[in-house]
Amino acid sequence: MRVTFEEMRSTIKLALVNAGVPEAKAELCAEIHTESSADGVESHGLNRIPRFVDYIRKGYVDVHAEPTLIAAKGAAENYDGHMGIGVTNALFASDQAVRLAKLHGIGLVTLKNTTHWMRGGTYAWRTANKGYMGISWINTEDCMPLWGSDEQSVGNNPFCIAIPRDKGPIVLDMAMSQYAYGKLGVYQLSGKQTEYPCGFDENGRMTTDPGEVIKTRRIMPTGYWKGSSMAIVLDLAATMMSNGNSGTEITHINKGSCGGCSQIFIAYDPYLFGDKSEIDRKIEERIIAADAAHPLNEKHPVHCPGESTIHRREVSMRDGIHVDDSVWKQVQEYAAGRF
Amino acid sequence: MRVTFEEMRSTIKLALVNAGVPEAKAELCAEIHTESSADGVESHGLNRIPRFVDYIRKGYVDVHAEPTLIAAKGAAENYDGHMGIGVTNALFASDQAVRLAKLHGIGLVTLKNTTHWMRGGTYAWRTANKGYMGISWINTEDCMPLWGSDEQSVGNNPFCIAIPRDKGPIVLDMAMSQYAYGKLGVYQLSGKQTEYPCGFDENGRMTTDPGEVIKTRRIMPTGYWKGSSMAIVLDLAATMMSNGNSGTEITHINKGSCGGCSQIFIAYDPYLFGDKSEIDRKIEERIIAADAAHPLNEKHPVHCPGESTIHRREVSMRDGIHVDDSVWKQVQEYAAGRF
Repeated sequence: MRVTFEEMRSTIKLALVNAGVPEAKAELCAEIHTESSADGVESHGLNRIPRFVDYIRKGYVDVHAEPTLIAAKGAAENYDGHMGIGVTNALFASDQAVRLAKLHGIGLVTLKNTTHWMRGGTYAWRTANKGYMGISWINTEDCMPLWGSDEQSVGNNPFCIAIPRDKGPIVLDMAMSQYAYGKLGVYQLSGKQTEYPCGFDENGRMTTDPGEVIKTRRIMPTGYWKGSSMAIVLDLAATMMSNGNSGTEITHINKGSCGGCSQIFIAYDPYLFGDKSEIDRKIEERIIAADAAHPLNEKHPVHCPGESTIHRREVSMRDGIHVDDSVWKQVQEYAAGRF
Repeated sequence: MRVTFEEMRSTIKLALVNAGVPEAKAELCAEIHTESSADGVESHGLNRIPRFVDYIRKGYVDVHAEPTLIAAKGAAENYDGHMGIGVTNALFASDQAVRLAKLHGIGLVTLKNTTHWMRGGTYAWRTANKGYMGISWINTEDCMPLWGSDEQSVGNNPFCIAIPRDKGPIVLDMAMSQYAYGKLGVYQLSGKQTEYPCGFDENGRMTTDPGEVIKTRRIMPTGYWKGSSMAIVLDLAATMMSNGNSGTEITHINKGSCGGCSQIFIAYDPYLFGDKSEIDRKIEERIIAADAAHPLNEKHPVHCPGESTIHRREVSMRDGIHVDDSVWKQVQEYAAGRF
């Protein structure tokens, strides 16, 4: 079924307040989760609320903790997230990066001891909507084999870049696995194989069977050795820059997905070294050239990442946001105080 | 055959001086190309000298041009490379980023109108060897189809991150194509198929036949849609940050590979927010855990990117650097003044 943005937002907010989240934070989280669902990223929108509530109840997330400044130098600041809510910590940190970029042209915020930020693209996207280029990444617990290994040994460490633009940003939101576990679940439910190998079966062979990979937890790094290499280096960089936990330490902490993780937020003034009109023209021409690339299949024109999301959001605002009936019912129960 | 580091360095230097490169710059270029060959990246080491000489003689590269400062703000500086030598421009720019990082904790240098920087990892690696984290990337002419297209419509835009470390840096040096054209040439010469699809044949089907892909120029983006998305966004970011040419503009300039490209150099003080001993311990533990990941094949232990390069360099310094006989003869001819 479909529900309106406002229905979903207010229902999630009430559910979170009932789970103990202070009202102002519940408001922010509800907005972010609803936006993710509206953009078609249901896995980190409405569908993630039950797990978020579970984490709160298990004490993995401290709903009262606020990020505190550890140290600052010039355009860079380091915060401790104190295992607070991942979404509100990351919103705070990305906004601080924008504040620093306004002062210095570039702003860097590093955040340690935080929790799951849900949809990774949210923060770079928000930075771009404020008129700044956003770059952000995270390290996670080991959930993917390093290339050449048969055991989970590195995180999927999403990496995001958003390019601000009057017509709506172009956004890279890229985890280092080829398919998310959530996506494999969707393939499995519909009885489909993945288009490309999604991981390894128990004999160490590549497979397109999502069920096999959900069993082995040997998910495929994107681009084989390349995504694996990028994942470990992003982990090391996040650890180093935030003086926070590495993926190995997050794995040992064992407080759910991303519990205790490190996050990096960079904001950059896109017109630091050029006129807005000149830079906007270059960017627009590049996007037009990309979108005009001759398609393999005439029915599927090429798009830059993020462009189709703008369209999807419009459809959701007009026709309502698609929800999974059983998840929607569960969150409504939370909103009614029944856990 | 194998030649010593010093033989290769002095031969390349003489070849470049004979091609018109001023001596100090020839010295720097010879060092960098020799290091690349010593590290096993022959395609951008000795093997690249004939093409570099060709570009000089065609006027694609202005061997006398020096980078000039366009504008500076705080920790960020923008330079025009004036189509000078890619290697010396990029060495200059990455060193400036380190200078800025010493002052501000983080340093950003954006460089426009430059030429091919050869092996991408060189500059992040150099930054790490100076004790700073290095991040750098470049945009190139269209040489790869965007995902869903059957024509070259985006660059392979290498992206590099180097993590400084007493034992030698961990380095990501990652082009957005699964296999470089140079690598496909190597497979083709040895009559081998690639392990994974390396591109599309003339019917738009994925293929592991390097010859087909060399013909169609439809090389595979790493991770399919993911590498394609990252490539276009890195291009937009490099263009925006340097106020330089986009991939589309580089393609139109048509002065060889990367002629007129834009490059980004970031340096970061790794101990900005923590003690060296504490951060080094975290990084070392993370690397040890990664390298201890249980291997698929006991004969092939897992390594972090860059670790095997350190070993390869040692072997080259001890036993000599492997060269292709015909390329070595050609560069020796240049060194003797015969073009």
